[in-house]
Amino acid sequence: MSKTFDIAVIGATGLIGETLLMVLDEREFPVGNLFPLSAGEAGSQVAAFGERNLRVRDVETFDFATVALVFLLEPLAPIQLARIESAGCALVDLTGSLSAQQAPCVVAGVNSPAAAGRWLRSPLPAVVALASVLGALRQVLGLQRVTVTACLAVSSRGRDGIEELARQTAQLLNARPVEPQLFDRQIAFNLLARASAEMPDGHARDERRLAAELGEVLAAPQLPVAVTCVQAPVFFGDSLAVSLLCDEPVDLPVIRHCLDDAAELELVEQGDYPTAVGDALGQDLVYVGRVRPGLQDPRELNLWIASDNVRKGSALNAVQLAELLLKHTL
Amino acid sequence: MSKTFDIAVIGATGLIGETLLMVLDEREFPVGNLFPLSAGEAGSQVAAFGERNLRVRDVETFDFATVALVFLLEPLAPIQLARIESAGCALVDLTGSLSAQQAPCVVAGVNSPAAAGRWLRSPLPAVVALASVLGALRQVLGLQRVTVTACLAVSSRGRDGIEELARQTAQLLNARPVEPQLFDRQIAFNLLARASAEMPDGHARDERRLAAELGEVLAAPQLPVAVTCVQAPVFFGDSLAVSLLCDEPVDLPVIRHCLDDAAELELVEQGDYPTAVGDALGQDLVYVGRVRPGLQDPRELNLWIASDNVRKGSALNAVQLAELLLKHTL
Repeated sequence: MSKTFDIAVIGATGLIGETLLMVLDEREFPVGNLFPLSAGEAGSQVAAFGERNLRVRDVETFDFATVALVFLLEPLAPIQLARIESAGCALVDLTGSLSAQQAPCVVAGVNSPAAAGRWLRSPLPAVVALASVLGALRQVLGLQRVTVTACLAVSSRGRDGIEELARQTAQLLNARPVEPQLFDRQIAFNLLARASAEMPDGHARDERRLAAELGEVLAAPQLPVAVTCVQAPVFFGDSLAVSLLCDEPVDLPVIRHCLDDAAELELVEQGDYPTAVGDALGQDLVYVGRVRPGLQDPRELNLWIASDNVRKGSALNAVQLAELLLKHTL
Repeated sequence: MSKTFDIAVIGATGLIGETLLMVLDEREFPVGNLFPLSAGEAGSQVAAFGERNLRVRDVETFDFATVALVFLLEPLAPIQLARIESAGCALVDLTGSLSAQQAPCVVAGVNSPAAAGRWLRSPLPAVVALASVLGALRQVLGLQRVTVTACLAVSSRGRDGIEELARQTAQLLNARPVEPQLFDRQIAFNLLARASAEMPDGHARDERRLAAELGEVLAAPQLPVAVTCVQAPVFFGDSLAVSLLCDEPVDLPVIRHCLDDAAELELVEQGDYPTAVGDALGQDLVYVGRVRPGLQDPRELNLWIASDNVRKGSALNAVQLAELLLKHTL
């Protein structure tokens, strides 16, 4: 029998946690014992893993020395993180709460972790999508500037986001007043220009995070990235309108060939375009279309990207990072 | 009694036509006789103007010599346009079917028509919004590059667009299959990366139109404009994520003061942001927020714009162009 690894998943019952357990099972990750944990009140929650239903335990009383690998899907207090570290566990973080020093940011197929690292960060789902495309393109072009409007699905806010969009939509279709709860105003049939808390400098937290993580994954921290994160009334799937400024005039056949060749990407045919709902949903690939140069500037390249934020952008990338750890570290 | 002008409105019963008649009435435009016309079958349609209900007539049999001014809200065959021209009518076009040579493109408060012009074009609603903001800003900054993601309301496709979004949404909430008719795929809870027909070069018709009209209104035809028009599941109101590259580092207090001073704009407070539904709907102002410099590049300026595409972007601008014609030409 081949070697297996005992694993803890902190936040296993959320939308991403549920998909993560499914992806671990699908990809036949060598899981020994799996411990679903909760940073809040575990209560009597149960998480499904393959055929099994597993009782959710409290983080605070869990002995991390019993597992080799931890998936972090809920932010933890520093004291709990220190317990995981001193137990010697490898860790894949999806919360964005760890620093680049604590855990390098990695997108599978784009960059590799430093050899010694046992802790890795999986970035914002929009970064997984964007870095997959730009990682392929940088083989054939030099990037001077990236401008992106990232239209985020409400599932980026978990099940509560989904429930709120459904509830508000039903209220409006029944001519009842809308009562925003999770979002700061009406999200149904509307677009919100701020998908996360605004910092004093006017940028939203996720806009800063997207730019920083993209720079880290592409090893180009000085690359100017202009980003607006928009909360869209879409249940699943991020959609990105991207405009790149390149060093030289873009060669469209070369660009298309490069995108078509990339293992993580699906380039849709010319004249067609992908959508979050129709194409990306439930898929392991990032969809790219509307590939076109600038109207006035031949150094400009414009793209439209659609990607499943829960599966591809979160759960799958996290499991792929665990596979990297398995190969190099565990 | 002061002088009045007899007016024909071609396409008076559509969403924009209805609002145009309302705005003419509200602004006390000196209307004598008003003739609602239809380029298709007029049948027994009726258009409301103030207290009156007016019968819709056929364009083909209408004598344009009886009116001084024509609003064009439906594209016409060249032979009909020639009849309007030879009758000596002034004209305001909202269809985008006339060339810059036939009729210059004007946004009220931003640029002025050439003295002799009797025909004017009102641009895409998104151009009215964007040019209002950039027209104000160019007093205090030099533009090198404009990148815009224009998320367009379904009302840009008229009443059919509104009905389709409502129908698809109800189908999905009732777990029934969605049947796209007007749009090329599911628009409910989705974003479509192509809001109009795609040209052989990969740009959509409205993306080309937006860039060309913006360049014309700002008298900057060489200004690089990168544009993606996205069809959003929003009934009314266009939302624009805009990133500008300027000649010099931007001075934020100066920028905010300039936007705050502009008569056509409403700058929302720092920390807040406007939305199409909550702010712009039914308003004569273009709403601006999320004003912030670049994360890496101090010459970058990012903005979020919301504007009522039917009222501000179409009907009001068309009536304001008629007011310009009244002052200078009629």
